[in-house]
Amino acid sequence: MTKIKIGILGATGMVGQMLVSLLEGHPWFEVTSLAASDKSAGRKYEEVMENRWSLAGGVPEYARDIKLEECKPGLDCSLVLSGLDPSAALKIEEDFARAGYGVSSNAKSHRMDADVPLLMPEINPGHIGLIDIQRKKRGWKGFIVTDPNCTTMGMSLALKPLDDSFGVEKVMVTTLQALSGAGYPGVPSIDIVDNVIPYINDEEDKVEEEPLKILGELKGSSIKKAKMVISASCNRVAVKYGHTECISVKLAKKTDVDGLVDAFERFKPLKGLGLPSAPARPIVVLRQENRPQPKLDANLEKGMASIIGRIRRCSILDYKFVLLSHNMVRGAAGAAILNAELLKVKGYLDG
Amino acid sequence: MTKIKIGILGATGMVGQMLVSLLEGHPWFEVTSLAASDKSAGRKYEEVMENRWSLAGGVPEYARDIKLEECKPGLDCSLVLSGLDPSAALKIEEDFARAGYGVSSNAKSHRMDADVPLLMPEINPGHIGLIDIQRKKRGWKGFIVTDPNCTTMGMSLALKPLDDSFGVEKVMVTTLQALSGAGYPGVPSIDIVDNVIPYINDEEDKVEEEPLKILGELKGSSIKKAKMVISASCNRVAVKYGHTECISVKLAKKTDVDGLVDAFERFKPLKGLGLPSAPARPIVVLRQENRPQPKLDANLEKGMASIIGRIRRCSILDYKFVLLSHNMVRGAAGAAILNAELLKVKGYLDG
Amino acid sequence: MTKIKIGILGATGMVGQMLVSLLEGHPWFEVTSLAASDKSAGRKYEEVMENRWSLAGGVPEYARDIKLEECKPGLDCSLVLSGLDPSAALKIEEDFARAGYGVSSNAKSHRMDADVPLLMPEINPGHIGLIDIQRKKRGWKGFIVTDPNCTTMGMSLALKPLDDSFGVEKVMVTTLQALSGAGYPGVPSIDIVDNVIPYINDEEDKVEEEPLKILGELKGSSIKKAKMVISASCNRVAVKYGHTECISVKLAKKTDVDGLVDAFERFKPLKGLGLPSAPARPIVVLRQENRPQPKLDANLEKGMASIIGRIRRCSILDYKFVLLSHNMVRGAAGAAILNAELLKVKGYLDG
Amino acid sequence: MTKIKIGILGATGMVGQMLVSLLEGHPWFEVTSLAASDKSAGRKYEEVMENRWSLAGGVPEYARDIKLEECKPGLDCSLVLSGLDPSAALKIEEDFARAGYGVSSNAKSHRMDADVPLLMPEINPGHIGLIDIQRKKRGWKGFIVTDPNCTTMGMSLALKPLDDSFGVEKVMVTTLQALSGAGYPGVPSIDIVDNVIPYINDEEDKVEEEPLKILGELKGSSIKKAKMVISASCNRVAVKYGHTECISVKLAKKTDVDGLVDAFERFKPLKGLGLPSAPARPIVVLRQENRPQPKLDANLEKGMASIIGRIRRCSILDYKFVLLSHNMVRGAAGAAILNAELLKVKGYLDG
Repeated sequence: MTKIKIGILGATGMVGQMLVSLLEGHPWFEVTSLAASDKSAGRKYEEVMENRWSLAGGVPEYARDIKLEECKPGLDCSLVLSGLDPSAALKIEEDFARAGYGVSSNAKSHRMDADVPLLMPEINPGHIGLIDIQRKKRGWKGFIVTDPNCTTMGMSLALKPLDDSFGVEKVMVTTLQALSGAGYPGVPSIDIVDNVIPYINDEEDKVEEEPLKILGELKGSSIKKAKMVISASCNRVAVKYGHTECISVKLAKKTDVDGLVDAFERFKPLKGLGLPSAPARPIVVLRQENRPQPKLDANLEKGMASIIGRIRRCSILDYKFVLLSHNMVRGAAGAAILNAELLKVKGYLDG
Repeated sequence: MTKIKIGILGATGMVGQMLVSLLEGHPWFEVTSLAASDKSAGRKYEEVMENRWSLAGGVPEYARDIKLEECKPGLDCSLVLSGLDPSAALKIEEDFARAGYGVSSNAKSHRMDADVPLLMPEINPGHIGLIDIQRKKRGWKGFIVTDPNCTTMGMSLALKPLDDSFGVEKVMVTTLQALSGAGYPGVPSIDIVDNVIPYINDEEDKVEEEPLKILGELKGSSIKKAKMVISASCNRVAVKYGHTECISVKLAKKTDVDGLVDAFERFKPLKGLGLPSAPARPIVVLRQENRPQPKLDANLEKGMASIIGRIRRCSILDYKFVLLSHNMVRGAAGAAILNAELLKVKGYLDG
Repeated sequence: MTKIKIGILGATGMVGQMLVSLLEGHPWFEVTSLAASDKSAGRKYEEVMENRWSLAGGVPEYARDIKLEECKPGLDCSLVLSGLDPSAALKIEEDFARAGYGVSSNAKSHRMDADVPLLMPEINPGHIGLIDIQRKKRGWKGFIVTDPNCTTMGMSLALKPLDDSFGVEKVMVTTLQALSGAGYPGVPSIDIVDNVIPYINDEEDKVEEEPLKILGELKGSSIKKAKMVISASCNRVAVKYGHTECISVKLAKKTDVDGLVDAFERFKPLKGLGLPSAPARPIVVLRQENRPQPKLDANLEKGMASIIGRIRRCSILDYKFVLLSHNMVRGAAGAAILNAELLKVKGYLDG
Repeated sequence: MTKIKIGILGATGMVGQMLVSLLEGHPWFEVTSLAASDKSAGRKYEEVMENRWSLAGGVPEYARDIKLEECKPGLDCSLVLSGLDPSAALKIEEDFARAGYGVSSNAKSHRMDADVPLLMPEINPGHIGLIDIQRKKRGWKGFIVTDPNCTTMGMSLALKPLDDSFGVEKVMVTTLQALSGAGYPGVPSIDIVDNVIPYINDEEDKVEEEPLKILGELKGSSIKKAKMVISASCNRVAVKYGHTECISVKLAKKTDVDGLVDAFERFKPLKGLGLPSAPARPIVVLRQENRPQPKLDANLEKGMASIIGRIRRCSILDYKFVLLSHNMVRGAAGAAILNAELLKVKGYLDG
């Protein structure tokens, strides 16, 4: 099989690095272009990343000699994965879509656009149909699909089976978010060592709004949002990878703890579809009383699952639990790749 | 004025050290006895603490040469402050009360006993009346009063003025708790560096139950508990001092953010009483969007206040905010001292 | 090929866990016995480790149902790998050797015994000959070999090629050591978050003495120690895995930085021997100015190499450089396994 | 006494904040001007610092309403303390000196200029005489004095009494440096949590060269540098305040550990001079085997001393010990203030 040529926008940033890393040896995709918004165009990726590469093991061999290009149409590929900053993403991603490229973006810029899918293959694969509406409306040959905010992602995975089985009415979530979620250079170390910062700019709004679109239904040419109410409190803690979320939910139907465990563990909607990056278990339930923990569990299912523990009664809503998801894999780069894989099997990358 | 002689039980532990530190130069109290449950009896405090003292600045001069004694009646003092572990506290504190000592305890052992005050001078000074019932019932010349769990303490301070002004019906709280709250040696470093532990043994029960007694009313010979419902999720983070709590509340009466701020800032019930350790402001409201933070704010009002920030609407309950309190000062040693000061002005240390 | 049956002594400790983890799928060895010094004998390994397992990914499947046994002869295996504490190791390891078992130990108890090899396959494979002397002298059917202290290990790997090429006369080393080196529970978190502890009990002595035996020569029935002088200063830092060492060396022969790089990179003494755990490159030289770093480089060569960077002139001795080695892999469990592999190819496990 | 009017250049940076903090209530100086190199001129200091102030306790009251000015002559004061970045400091400090201001700088820009004192009151108060040479040569009415690099400072304090008593010939130093030494935002948190960075740009050069000037002698119109040789290895660790240094020294005269302790403890050259910021003990020797530690000891003597422990034989040079100094107090802001105090008593601020 000829591999599909892929470009990475924002290849030098934190999400870009993770994209470069996760795409090493991908069975369907071949990274042919690396682009960055800074002055590094023309230089080899390895050289540019010499003091900026932040993942263990170093720059993958395949990427070392690729010369960085500017973030504008002309890249030799049919799909671009975008790890751009929102400020840059807004225009650049549109330029690529207009020029005929597919864009699978991790930036927030287009997430809430009415004609752009906020796509999670396990939850709303049908939203991919918005692409046709988007193309018609905007007159584009290409298209943009987006994946959610890193905190939203893990939580939405957990809400979907609960909503299907019991109806989710209310969600109260307090997060303990990892440093890598802030990009690079992100949070100054002097601000966070031996400290907690109980605030992340814009984050609570995203966590309260994005899931309503993700869990909504495509009716005609638009998404009808889900009806639940979400209240979020977001905190930054001194953890490198893995967002922890303490979640309480109010459900429409009665159930018990075993009912929740069962709903979580039966949730395998992508089974049989053969997406290379899809986790065998999108939700992993742990039984130990002090789990999940970032250092022990963030990489379960190669970082593509939501890890859930401590499912118990909540005396105010109905149930509460702790959720962990790898903010840089499922919460960012891995999500953009999984979306690209869905695009392929749905025929959107056929050229 | 002759100072009142004070003993410290569990003087070598984390709470004991903080008691030794905070009582340096106290205007009413003089530490005359240091007692510990371990094999260190007979040795000088400074020598025993050489490799265990964990506070900046070293052992206060007054305490260095005091010889450690065993934790049993016979100490030359009239009041003991207890930083004992719960396992030891249960019997030892009763032995002291029976032998005629006043006991101001930070241990959980007696907190929920029907005839033992769970005392917070700003909230329930009248509960001190339980001492008479306790003495009658148990036939003791001495008595036991307790202060709450370190997480409960800061939250209860915030709930009191809200309850008085608006009626608190529901409280959802998720905590990010400091390492010092686990005592010594406490949490192994390999378990918490670059990690979060979403579980603290027994903690959620205490946070859900203790405030109901604290905010309750002494009717006849017993406390009628407050009616609110509390749901807690407790996490350990890599912070040394200062518990952060994300709190949402449902109120009986309508108000607005300014109403909450006003209730918090007007709350100064100890004004004029002259207790040396009472903070001028038991609640400090910060206006910056990213506060309170442990490293910046835990020591405001010398660690004796609850620091509150980010007061805003909650889409599920009514309002949410972030609270910080110094778990070793207001949440432990400082609380036991403040209770001792209230005991003095109420005449319970007169002889 | 029938696999050789292996037992692990101290299987519940930090080194024991790493042994269990690294031996998963080993081509030559099969773990048939897990033994621990505590009260867990008779219970399944997974159950005992439920709240103690500290490595990402959980207990390997093969080990989950193995029932823990007591640490005494009778285990169904021919070789035991020991991760015991020194206090327990002294007698238990001798009991096993006397009973006919081979013992590959990570404990310090027997390291400096004149008739016990302090074995590093890349450096002193010939020291294995001490086994015959040991058996004769002690009347044992089995034997004990040891691997060095975790700090010594990485440094000795670097000193060997320098000594061979240029003659090492003096070594000044200051370490920044990881938390996992202290075992479990090890360093209390309250002592090390936002702190450095400039002292590790007994460590400097080991780092100054062990390399002289490791780099020594087996002459007749005893080791003639190497002549170099080592001065060590050891510090604990808030890093989970990977000891960093700042090393300066005085050499007998003149050379230059390229000479050192060349000596390091040519050092591949195990090439062709086929030991499964031997790293392709026992020493990896990094060129970036700010490397090696624990988070980026500790797992290069699967944690079995010494990673070296910043090779430069020293104005007092001759050259200085920074060395990183994974204290739990090459510095402990991986070293015991590599020694076991050497024992096998040298015929010491033949039954 | 009328207080001397002081301005602070770079008042919004890390050193600037510490200057603002330490000058609160100073008996001789009154801060009348705050200046910054950024776009904040014209706004109140407290408002500008709302989300940037990084010290516990908040902006001191006296400074809150001061309006920030630009960093150019015209400030209403006679002396400026400079916490400027080196890039800005080079020209701006000269502009101020030319315009008649005294400049006490913490920037590196002018430290090694032949006619600029690298001043430490305990060590080389006589170097202040360079001011006259500087004025003559440069035709300035004002002048510049500098204080050393934060790592150099603490070490030089320790070397002075050793050099006086025994003659220091060689110094090998490996550092574990705090995050605050890198300024703000400084080291990204993702780079240093659970990590060590074995490199600090330019730092080793400064540590190897500055002490030779500091410990040198003013002969005629120039400094004759000290003869010792220094070799430095500098590392960044996840500590907020306090540089730890592992130091080995070779001495010209024989002595013993008690001799070193005695030399350190007798070193009180400023006694009787009445400088308000001078520590009673410029060197504090601790006897505990695991000290000094940043969290316990950095604030001894209000952060103005070098804290020394673990004095012992070195098998390569003669003696080794661990030194701790507060990099933001004695290592930066406190040093600039102490220099200003020396300038006053020597008559250089008389107007």
